[in-house]
Amino acid sequence: MDYRSLKHQTSTLFLTIFLLLILGCFASPRKSIRSRRPCKEMVFYFHDIIYNGKNFKNATSVIVGSPAWGNHTILANYNHFGNVVVFDDPITLDNNLHSPPVGRAQGLYIYDKKEIFTSWLGFSFVFNSTAHKGSLNFAGADPLMNKTRDISVIGGTGDFFMDRGVATLMTDSFEGEVYFRLRVDIKLYECW
Amino acid sequence: MDYRSLKHQTSTLFLTIFLLLILGCFASPRKSIRSRRPCKEMVFYFHDIIYNGKNFKNATSVIVGSPAWGNHTILANYNHFGNVVVFDDPITLDNNLHSPPVGRAQGLYIYDKKEIFTSWLGFSFVFNSTAHKGSLNFAGADPLMNKTRDISVIGGTGDFFMDRGVATLMTDSFEGEVYFRLRVDIKLYECW
Amino acid sequence: MDYRSLKHQTSTLFLTIFLLLILGCFASPRKSIRSRRPCKEMVFYFHDIIYNGKNFKNATSVIVGSPAWGNHTILANYNHFGNVVVFDDPITLDNNLHSPPVGRAQGLYIYDKKEIFTSWLGFSFVFNSTAHKGSLNFAGADPLMNKTRDISVIGGTGDFFMDRGVATLMTDSFEGEVYFRLRVDIKLYECW
Repeated sequence: MDYRSLKHQTSTLFLTIFLLLILGCFASPRKSIRSRRPCKEMVFYFHDIIYNGKNFKNATSVIVGSPAWGNHTILANYNHFGNVVVFDDPITLDNNLHSPPVGRAQGLYIYDKKEIFTSWLGFSFVFNSTAHKGSLNFAGADPLMNKTRDISVIGGTGDFFMDRGVATLMTDSFEGEVYFRLRVDIKLYECW
Repeated sequence: MDYRSLKHQTSTLFLTIFLLLILGCFASPRKSIRSRRPCKEMVFYFHDIIYNGKNFKNATSVIVGSPAWGNHTILANYNHFGNVVVFDDPITLDNNLHSPPVGRAQGLYIYDKKEIFTSWLGFSFVFNSTAHKGSLNFAGADPLMNKTRDISVIGGTGDFFMDRGVATLMTDSFEGEVYFRLRVDIKLYECW
Repeated sequence: MDYRSLKHQTSTLFLTIFLLLILGCFASPRKSIRSRRPCKEMVFYFHDIIYNGKNFKNATSVIVGSPAWGNHTILANYNHFGNVVVFDDPITLDNNLHSPPVGRAQGLYIYDKKEIFTSWLGFSFVFNSTAHKGSLNFAGADPLMNKTRDISVIGGTGDFFMDRGVATLMTDSFEGEVYFRLRVDIKLYECW
């Protein structure tokens, strides 16, 4: 091997590197090169106790738009269609309502279908524990008759600064139309 | 050319590569290197039939906060200011209300201006067709007197796992204040 | 140094570069390599004048779900729990309500706690000035008794196409329960 051959070999390699660099980093930087392995994983439970006129002390949520008893719309009799519910639910690490809360789930949900129970959620987890400070923000459809439902984690603050991901909701338990317990498996795929 | 010159040349090239590598991949990784060419493009129509007290069977949406007839606020008489509408609208591939729906648009919109029709939307497309499973979540202002309005695609699940983008709304047709048909051009720029 | 040694050295360097390339660009591309230096920073004020039955002309927002005076739920007497407010507030560059607005803050907030004033926000900044065209969309919890509160910038359109970030809210001034002025420090960390 002489200089020329070595130089040629070197040049070829450089070209390959540049090509890879350009293909890998510059072209379509937001496609297909992302890991589907979560960068953070957490499980929480939250507990929704809907105000029924008698449970003022314990209630954590209240129907504020078109409840059936408000006589606003006949549609509310159909799977609560049109009900708007505002909530401030305790978040716990296990499925016990009386466990020390690690934060509050705050926001609203609406029932948005005549034929079946289905809701849409916009809310935040506001953490206030030794383990987590900050908040995660969620939005998405919650077809609650399905065993699992995926919604989007659309942003975060504090410990969860700029994070994004997907949260899977499961109805862990319910009692009539007053108490709901949701299990949430949070998987963040974009961590800062 | 002797060894030294070759070595020098090689080193210079390495330095250049490293510099490019650092500049292109590490510094300001979320700026200017992104393609504005969508990684997914789709067009859908959705059909909103507002409950008017008489169209129970066909209605896909209902005013649940401060309708004018609820006498809650005089402001509702001004371009529906304050109206909160919950909807579950069929999504079709063309502009025909009776085409087989590929999913449902579910969420809420509010009318939020006294002087002109303007709304704000928080909703999801929940797909359930052979072509698409999963959901896309949207949020944004909809100044509906404008020909086109851009809102954000803030997340997705299933086939649209973690996707982000921009959706352009156009009022394709309307009949009085009962039927609205919206054309949505969805462009996703961040695909996983 | 002979050819072989040079070749060996070259190969080792190539290997190192490839390794760095793979580690830096391909593996976990959404973790830890991001700058926490904002790519855009802006400060705005917005002015919320709540309709109280007498201020029709100036009002920029209205309680549409379960106001205390609507007698829907006794809970509204407790820190407005359950109130849903729709707003269309002017945005200004300084803290003067009468400065020329650069856009409108449009959306909704809810009061979502019995024990203390706390709200949840879903809204957009719709810009319409020589400096900015387009919109920014926000969502998050607003524990308004805290001096500063962080919410998420979940997307943008126009000049703010696809942007994401964090916005810090501060109550700049208030008069009774009718006028609120919020200062918003917007920091975008993901710019396109």
